[in-house]
Amino acid sequence: MTLVRILDLVGVGVFAVSGTLAAGRKRLDPVGVGVIAVVTALGGGTIRDLLMRRPIFWLTDTAYLITIFVASALTILYVRYRRPPERELEIADALGLALFAMTGSQIAETAQLPALMVVVIAVITCTFGGLLRDVLCNEVPFILGRGHFYATAVIAGSICYLILQRLGIPRIYASFSGMAVVASLRIAAIYWNLTLPVFDLERHRNRP
Amino acid sequence: MTLVRILDLVGVGVFAVSGTLAAGRKRLDPVGVGVIAVVTALGGGTIRDLLMRRPIFWLTDTAYLITIFVASALTILYVRYRRPPERELEIADALGLALFAMTGSQIAETAQLPALMVVVIAVITCTFGGLLRDVLCNEVPFILGRGHFYATAVIAGSICYLILQRLGIPRIYASFSGMAVVASLRIAAIYWNLTLPVFDLERHRNRP
Amino acid sequence: MTLVRILDLVGVGVFAVSGTLAAGRKRLDPVGVGVIAVVTALGGGTIRDLLMRRPIFWLTDTAYLITIFVASALTILYVRYRRPPERELEIADALGLALFAMTGSQIAETAQLPALMVVVIAVITCTFGGLLRDVLCNEVPFILGRGHFYATAVIAGSICYLILQRLGIPRIYASFSGMAVVASLRIAAIYWNLTLPVFDLERHRNRP
Repeated sequence: MTLVRILDLVGVGVFAVSGTLAAGRKRLDPVGVGVIAVVTALGGGTIRDLLMRRPIFWLTDTAYLITIFVASALTILYVRYRRPPERELEIADALGLALFAMTGSQIAETAQLPALMVVVIAVITCTFGGLLRDVLCNEVPFILGRGHFYATAVIAGSICYLILQRLGIPRIYASFSGMAVVASLRIAAIYWNLTLPVFDLERHRNRP
Repeated sequence: MTLVRILDLVGVGVFAVSGTLAAGRKRLDPVGVGVIAVVTALGGGTIRDLLMRRPIFWLTDTAYLITIFVASALTILYVRYRRPPERELEIADALGLALFAMTGSQIAETAQLPALMVVVIAVITCTFGGLLRDVLCNEVPFILGRGHFYATAVIAGSICYLILQRLGIPRIYASFSGMAVVASLRIAAIYWNLTLPVFDLERHRNRP
Repeated sequence: MTLVRILDLVGVGVFAVSGTLAAGRKRLDPVGVGVIAVVTALGGGTIRDLLMRRPIFWLTDTAYLITIFVASALTILYVRYRRPPERELEIADALGLALFAMTGSQIAETAQLPALMVVVIAVITCTFGGLLRDVLCNEVPFILGRGHFYATAVIAGSICYLILQRLGIPRIYASFSGMAVVASLRIAAIYWNLTLPVFDLERHRNRP
């Protein structure tokens, strides 16, 4: 098992924890918890694969689902005794985000999509799982309005990765730089509570 | 027309009735009723086919859509004069669920997916139509929290079907046993109002 | 660049404006605005392509995304100074609807789908973008209940297009007639505030 595969599964597990906690806030039963955990962890990659390629990455590789179910069960056990460590989970989530931003970008590159699509596919890979989680929990998706640079960090990291490669930097270093951009931007936004300004149609009510 | 095809269309019709009634609770117009009925009846199989195979099963076979529109129109007429027979509809829905659990499992088997995926595909086939119905009606999906063993019955039936085959039982008997498990578990849960315990994050509020 | 391509991009831009305004009503950040604008403008065609064909039409052609981002940015700028011209936007949307009803129908015809599916694919192409927009904004989709003949106009136009072709009218004239039906029905419904009667399950509460 390579390092990338281990990190990939760890990232999926972290996303599954976030899904499990969201399900717990909605008082779902174990099946509901499982569905939300799976959708959160695999939804983004699934939509990417539906748009771009076959087969869907998790269909023939049971390691993904097993990781999710184990992560979800451990989360349910853990919160019986302790509060979930929210700050630490956000950091772990940021690292998963950084990894998936690069794997998403590279899958789009492999399919020889134009640069704009590489960024779009990275965003879909990283954020559409959480988007589906919030839709299933009947809430306006977190990433759309209160996201603390969630998708923005992915966009910045993916653009950085593309530019560095154009400048002749080898892909492996460009990847690490892209990941650093995603993780540091996201973690900075969490610590300093940074958000983008919202577009509010009502604010301009007195226009002619 | 074989027995399986007749049962398949009857099952689709029953799911369309459930979609039509959900649309009626939201005061939708005829187009809205049609969309919800189609999504409820075909949504699960469509997502399964998107994940696994082409073509989408209902695209080249108009019998599915015609069945849905007829079932939906009859439902609208019926409820002008009488209350919908809720208990009988739930029983019919349980039988449809049992059938689709087995057809979903078998489609995944045909694609030579691992056993875990056979169960997952059965759950997607059976429950994601109702999930999409509830998302379109702007509600937390029924199957995730108040589902009375809806997805659970599918999981149990699909596992039973797989185990019996491993034990050397012919597929046809394994299928009937799996269907019996799904239907009886679901009907028992309805009659005795059985639910799984929910995972409630707030309950553990005083943890350290 | 042919006339059809220009019209296609203009139609996509109009749908992006409608998505941007919906995002502004929900107070989303720029990333959220971009996601909603893209989903509104490309969602219907994407679901059509997922169901029927590869590749997804916008993945290899950056003109669509660039049009959407420009239309969305211009909308955000515009509403700082003036109220959005709602009636004019609805007319532009009706013209886009008419165009997409015909392109959707023709893509289904090219795939040699039966006539019923041609109409269904036209409806999916035209309305599922708005459906996804409303789901992401956590509302019951506009087209399902308060749609002022939105999907209905598409159905009528697509049927008109099919019938005229059966009668031996050349495809180009059948297309223009179908577009005229969609646009005029939709614009008439807006001006005279026409809606279809809703199916209301509660109205019949006193049934036996």
